[in-house]
Amino acid sequence: MKKPVWILSTLLVLMPALSNASDSMADKAVDYRQGVFSILGWNIGPMVQMMKKEKPYDKDIFARNAQRMAAVAPMALEGFIPDSATKDSDAKPKIWSNMDDFKSKMKDLETASAELAAVAKTGDMAQIGPKFQNLGQACKACHDEYREE
Amino acid sequence: MKKPVWILSTLLVLMPALSNASDSMADKAVDYRQGVFSILGWNIGPMVQMMKKEKPYDKDIFARNAQRMAAVAPMALEGFIPDSATKDSDAKPKIWSNMDDFKSKMKDLETASAELAAVAKTGDMAQIGPKFQNLGQACKACHDEYREE
Repeated sequence: MKKPVWILSTLLVLMPALSNASDSMADKAVDYRQGVFSILGWNIGPMVQMMKKEKPYDKDIFARNAQRMAAVAPMALEGFIPDSATKDSDAKPKIWSNMDDFKSKMKDLETASAELAAVAKTGDMAQIGPKFQNLGQACKACHDEYREE
Repeated sequence: MKKPVWILSTLLVLMPALSNASDSMADKAVDYRQGVFSILGWNIGPMVQMMKKEKPYDKDIFARNAQRMAAVAPMALEGFIPDSATKDSDAKPKIWSNMDDFKSKMKDLETASAELAAVAKTGDMAQIGPKFQNLGQACKACHDEYREE
């Protein structure tokens, strides 16, 4: 059977669209997981400012950011492939010798961000506060143990 | 009214968890949008390999990656804040003088990734092929015009 025409044209179209096609798999994995953490950081920033009353609480933006964090948090673990503690990475090598604990901490991040996203829709600070704190603790628990500061 | 205790403790907990807290807003925006594109690139990579038959088609992974692309594609635009064509960015300055066209191209990416995610669940290549090609074209249209290669 001949390949349909769309397969060939898709390949031609996609070649230049793939970023960093020449990077090693480890470099791509580092870019990818750092990308996930950049999105988490970008979104939590305004939420922290709202909690600190440095900017007015905006229920919709807070809820949207929480939802985005919940959407990307489950994507992070996949980027921690073997042999990817590169010079561009802040990941401590002990991640790979403590993978079960690391996975458990990533799962905590996933749970905490999902739970915050769920209550953020209500706009009820009595519910949001404790869930936000849980999320902060999930970030900190992993950074303290597994990230070079 | 006194601030509840959890607000204070949340702030203490979160301080070290925020990545690149000292970076400028432009640098954070570049990190953020590059993070979105890293996630897109990471996920489309194996999909391209499956389409090229370099690796076996796995319906679940293909559908999961398509869903992830659809989840993060709508997050990219927010990172193109004014005055953020920094030295670390591949974004051409003309993005900001052609913002309506740029937004329209980002919307095409959003639509194409959502449509691919919808059909990817079926595993039906007759539907997936054309939607995958649309997504590739949406990537390419914007890269050609607005990204330094």
